[in-house]
Parts: sequence; C-alpha cells; structure tokens
Amino acid sequence: MRNDKILEIKNIIRDIPDFPKKGIIFKDITTLLNNRDLFCDSIDYMCELVSNKAFNTIAAIESRGFIFGAAMAYKLNLRFVPIRKPGKLPAEVLIEEYALEYGTDRVEIHADALDAESVVLIVDDLLATGGTAEASCKLIERSKARVAAVAFLVELKFLHGRELLNKYEVLSLINYD
Amino acid sequence: MRNDKILEIKNIIRDIPDFPKKGIIFKDITTLLNNRDLFCDSIDYMCELVSNKAFNTIAAIESRGFIFGAAMAYKLNLRFVPIRKPGKLPAEVLIEEYALEYGTDRVEIHADALDAESVVLIVDDLLATGGTAEASCKLIERSKARVAAVAFLVELKFLHGRELLNKYEVLSLINYD
Repeated sequence: MRNDKILEIKNIIRDIPDFPKKGIIFKDITTLLNNRDLFCDSIDYMCELVSNKAFNTIAAIESRGFIFGAAMAYKLNLRFVPIRKPGKLPAEVLIEEYALEYGTDRVEIHADALDAESVVLIVDDLLATGGTAEASCKLIERSKARVAAVAFLVELKFLHGRELLNKYEVLSLINYD
Repeated sequence: MRNDKILEIKNIIRDIPDFPKKGIIFKDITTLLNNRDLFCDSIDYMCELVSNKAFNTIAAIESRGFIFGAAMAYKLNLRFVPIRKPGKLPAEVLIEEYALEYGTDRVEIHADALDAESVVLIVDDLLATGGTAEASCKLIERSKARVAAVAFLVELKFLHGRELLNKYEVLSLINYD
C-alpha cells in the first residue's frame, strides 16, 4: 500500500525535457501538487521519513522547498525558518556562497533565526548536485545550531549530491537512478 | 481568546525600517514563522477566515505565499497551484504583466494547471498595492477558472490594494491602518 502510493507519487511527477536548458530533463513536481490526495500523501510520507529523527525546527530552501517544509512544519507543530536567495531577508543575515556549473550563487538565513538550542531538519523538493543543500547546512552550523537531517522529496541519484552531504543524514522519498 | 491570539500574531511580526529601500517599513513575518504555536495558529486562523467560501484549489504567490498556501492546502486537503516569477515554471505558461512603481513585473501559471471546474482561493502573505494579486486573479480567469476569494495574512490598508481587487472578495487576518 505504502509502496504503491509512493510509486503513484513518482509517476505523477512530470518530465520536462530541455528545461532550464538543452539536455536537462526537469522533474516537474507541480503535477504532484495539483493532485490533492497525492500532495497530502507526499507531506505525510515526508514526515514519516524523518519520524525517528529528533529536531525542533524545519528550515526550508526557497522556493519549492517552502511548499513541503511549511506543510511539514504545520503538521508537526514546528517553527519554520526560511533559507532564501540573496537580498530577500530584511534583517541581518548570514551568507553562504556555493559553486554552480558556471559561477556561484548564494543562500542567506537571518542571523538571529537559530541558536544553540535549535536542532534543524532541512527540507527541499529535490537533491541534484547538492550545492544549495550543503551551503544551507553550513548556514545552520554557523548559526550555532545542529543539522538533524536533510530531507528531499526527490533525489537524482545519478548526480551524486549525497556525496557532497556525507557529513549529514540524507533522506529522500523518491529516487531516480 | 481568538482576538488575543490574533493580536499576539500581529505583535510578533517585526518592523524593519528602510527595507527594501529607504522610507519603507517592511513587515517581517519570519519572526512569526519562527514561533511554532503562533505559526500554526496563523494557518488555522487563515483557514477559519475562508471557511464559509467554497473552493477546491489553493493558488499561492511565490515565495512567501507558498508558506501559507501550502500549509493551508495540506490542512484543507486541497490541491496547490504555484503562481511564480518569470522563467521558473517548466511547462507552457500563461503570463500576466503588472505595473510597479518604476517599470513592470510578471507572474506566470502553468497553462494546464486549472480548468473550468477549478474554484480557486488565492493566498499570499501580504497585500500592499495589490498589483501582484490582481495579475494573479487575471491568470486564474484566463485559465477558465473562477476566483473564490483572495486571502492575505497581512493587509497594509493605507496602500488601498483592496481597491484594485474590488471585483474580488478580499480577506485578511492582520491589518495595519
């Protein structure tokens, strides 16, 4: 039953060829979001995936991570900390830069969002090369907090993002080999 | 009790002066998100606010709207449709342009996300001048769907965004006069 449902979730995720650029097959989760039962199931299964981890905070990565992270935080009655693209957070921030294929990008967290009592589950929709997730882990640690685990709806195993995150517990619901 | 709680939610929202530019006092909701009970209460009260409206879909506006819209969709067991900034959605999109103080911006929705059976609650964190929300309503209608209402956590009444949305039912939990 559970495995059938997870296969249904996998099957409703849509492949979009050549997005954002030629040669890349983009995993489009909007078709999952657009099915009320499978969307809610996916939140329940994400929560189940992390049910044996101890954490008191969910931090999610802008923008699609917000969809899964916020619903999980609501279900689990936890606080929610956004990790955002540059220039979006209004108060003092910590900044972490990470490498892209060409050039760099940055993620930010409010400097006062976390403290030494915070044990954080990081949530994002998709693990690709892991650069954003690794930078997010660093932001958590620079905030004096601890990363309990990093949870993804989808993991693209062939991109080996898990290796970049080998210091952390990495969990994912749907895998593509 | 309810009014006390809503006042608590209002009081935990933080004012950041001169963000994103000089002279603007930014309403920072991250301090609300960072309080687990008030965050979850704010979702419950947003759902209560729309409880006498009939709708079968929640569409939320990137990015902070995703936080409230996704948690509400989970709670109400509804499907979730993202309204996004340009270039983010991978499949065919409808595009709506709207005026900013200087220049224009755009929002997009997947062309196949909605149909004539869709009755949509639009969710965003904050109503300011209303440009993004009005453009979002137009996207819903161009999708052949119907806007049931537009719901905001915060309304900045002194910016009169409600007037731009006068064709629609507008609901907000927290007001600043």
